[in-house]
Amino acid sequence: MPVGNIAPPDIIHAIEGVEIGITAAGVRYKDRDDLVVFRLSETASVACVTTTNKCCAAPVLLVREHLQQLAGSDKSARYLLINTGNANAATGEEGYRRALQTCKALADKVEVEVNQVMPFSTGVIGEVINSEAIINGLDNCLASLSQDNWLSAANAIRTTDTIPKVASTSVVVDEAISYKVTGISKGAGMIRPNMATMLGYVATDAPIAQHLLQQMLVELTNQSFNRITIDGDTSTNDCCVLIATGDNQANLIDSTQHPHYQVLYQALKEVFLRLATLIVRDGEGATKFITVKVTGGKTVEDCCDVAYAVAHSPLVKTAFFASDPNWGRIVAAVGYSGAENLDADQVSVTLDDVAICTRGQLDPSYTEEQGQEVMSRPEITINIDLGMGEATDTVYTCDLSHEYVSINADYRS
Amino acid sequence: MPVGNIAPPDIIHAIEGVEIGITAAGVRYKDRDDLVVFRLSETASVACVTTTNKCCAAPVLLVREHLQQLAGSDKSARYLLINTGNANAATGEEGYRRALQTCKALADKVEVEVNQVMPFSTGVIGEVINSEAIINGLDNCLASLSQDNWLSAANAIRTTDTIPKVASTSVVVDEAISYKVTGISKGAGMIRPNMATMLGYVATDAPIAQHLLQQMLVELTNQSFNRITIDGDTSTNDCCVLIATGDNQANLIDSTQHPHYQVLYQALKEVFLRLATLIVRDGEGATKFITVKVTGGKTVEDCCDVAYAVAHSPLVKTAFFASDPNWGRIVAAVGYSGAENLDADQVSVTLDDVAICTRGQLDPSYTEEQGQEVMSRPEITINIDLGMGEATDTVYTCDLSHEYVSINADYRS
Repeated sequence: MPVGNIAPPDIIHAIEGVEIGITAAGVRYKDRDDLVVFRLSETASVACVTTTNKCCAAPVLLVREHLQQLAGSDKSARYLLINTGNANAATGEEGYRRALQTCKALADKVEVEVNQVMPFSTGVIGEVINSEAIINGLDNCLASLSQDNWLSAANAIRTTDTIPKVASTSVVVDEAISYKVTGISKGAGMIRPNMATMLGYVATDAPIAQHLLQQMLVELTNQSFNRITIDGDTSTNDCCVLIATGDNQANLIDSTQHPHYQVLYQALKEVFLRLATLIVRDGEGATKFITVKVTGGKTVEDCCDVAYAVAHSPLVKTAFFASDPNWGRIVAAVGYSGAENLDADQVSVTLDDVAICTRGQLDPSYTEEQGQEVMSRPEITINIDLGMGEATDTVYTCDLSHEYVSINADYRS
Repeated sequence: MPVGNIAPPDIIHAIEGVEIGITAAGVRYKDRDDLVVFRLSETASVACVTTTNKCCAAPVLLVREHLQQLAGSDKSARYLLINTGNANAATGEEGYRRALQTCKALADKVEVEVNQVMPFSTGVIGEVINSEAIINGLDNCLASLSQDNWLSAANAIRTTDTIPKVASTSVVVDEAISYKVTGISKGAGMIRPNMATMLGYVATDAPIAQHLLQQMLVELTNQSFNRITIDGDTSTNDCCVLIATGDNQANLIDSTQHPHYQVLYQALKEVFLRLATLIVRDGEGATKFITVKVTGGKTVEDCCDVAYAVAHSPLVKTAFFASDPNWGRIVAAVGYSGAENLDADQVSVTLDDVAICTRGQLDPSYTEEQGQEVMSRPEITINIDLGMGEATDTVYTCDLSHEYVSINADYRS
């Protein structure tokens, strides 16, 4: 059961210049939407970040190659081709050949260069992909192109996600100008039944210069998709795409100093964070949504190290599953986090508003009842103050439950 | 249930120069052995390594201070004072004061300097230690000193370990000379009910120079206790001590070139490895003992990174619990291991003798039946060949079961 508010937004803004087509191509299962095509306007800027996993999938390699080729040309990415059911990972040269084949088929149909098509795959690892099914599904996909297909697309890119993940907002940047931001994501554990996992697609109708868009995407990803963890496993297929379709050169946002930049960035961040935390809320076996907020660090790196150590610790995560205020486990994880500037006697921990550990020792005001009460909440913030400086960082995670083991142990038996 | 052969050795060699006393001091529970004193001969060399956790416990701080003070003197460590039931961790200045108090009490009784006593604590974190109980137990402990108490000591230092952990061997280094090696350890998860965890004490009657002994201990620990993982959590109290009591200056082993060095080192390694792997076999909820052996690396660091990534992955561990040959998870973990020299297309994986993945792709000879069969074994070696060079490294771990979640989630409820 996903944790907390996971409903799609009431209003999902269409983004001018982005059309989405969907079909049930039978990549792995019959009669289930599994193929999605994004068509982007000719003037759209497109930025992309891909998994750091060195055993990355064939489509990831192709996305990188295509983007590199486009960077040296006057052309831009025009189509995203996304399938679920098969990740086309650990499939060697044959996998690469098949991914390229699907890009070519689409490129031929719509008359663009092959490197203007970006392929993405998610699903089972290590099986040869049914590229024929994908190619045969293209016509249906193209026939269904529409600006209003965001929610259907969020459903179609699911593997074992229990909910579609959509976020949408609009922002007024000027008296006369407002922009829309809409995005979808998928992921429910880093790899669930070998599902190579995280995908995110966000678009805005704001005009943003390509070089700035890429820089924004890296920053936005670092504050959202790179700040969530369910089981610490990084998939072979993770990709995130940011699209800006605006064509108004007079208002082109081309630097962080542009008057529209900050407010647009915040709107994008809101959408990214929502898409990322939805993945945690839908985490495998999750019963609690946990925010690990580290303050008082000497550096952001220290805060990040500490936050991840706590968020990854199976002992911390099982304690939260059990609603057990087992603060020694949190302190131990802080200690082995590898953070450079750390003094055990300066570390304080509060759970929501309950002070548990103050400067390395049990807080004198703490009672077991308080601890039990706060731990039983479905959404909890672990505040860790390192007492060393002003830096801060936040990571989002969920608890570790019996259900997690069941999901990951039992799916094939 | 511990996995595989976990019986203590038939012969546990006494080590001349090492006497052990044990008593039920009532540190936390009544009528349970919880206090152990080691008395070492005046000429013994003593080496020690301590946890890298920056939130380390008060006794760990004291051990480091005492060893530093002794290094600049002509005196050596004469007593180890070990309690279970309370880790004296996250206890601040009061914890430090109490640990020092127990050292002083023992030092006064046996007429040594306080820094010749090394304190070790294991048990619950964050509670003030009952130092009075320890001090009151010293007389009984000293009265029971004997060379034959290794097994009883292994039992006494347990927290939630289900088995005592002992290893013992003897080795002929020369026609006329043989040495004995005996050791004990404790640990069952990195922290089980907040139990601050790993302790190891190994002694030999060989004569080894102090500087070499420390160097050997670091190397031995890196190949044993630093190559096991259950849940990836590093405790606040981990310590390992190596004692060499031999007094024969004519045969003093003072360099790695000494003719007795290699064969003695191998005997020590055997004991260290046994003590370390016993901890994994007794791992929380473990149903399988897994050896992750990485070969063909360009560097040992790469091999170590890969081995730990695989051994830590909850997805790999749950797959082993389920006896599911889910090799995609292994390949994904290899990919995100952070190893510097890695080419996905060169990675091969075999489980025991079953080739699963060859150079990044499913091995053509592989069948699901073979995979199922090998995965159902209680002891499995994951062989990962990186195909990049000659380096190798090995890590030992166990699977992740429902029982792990139960043990760590339910203990206080």
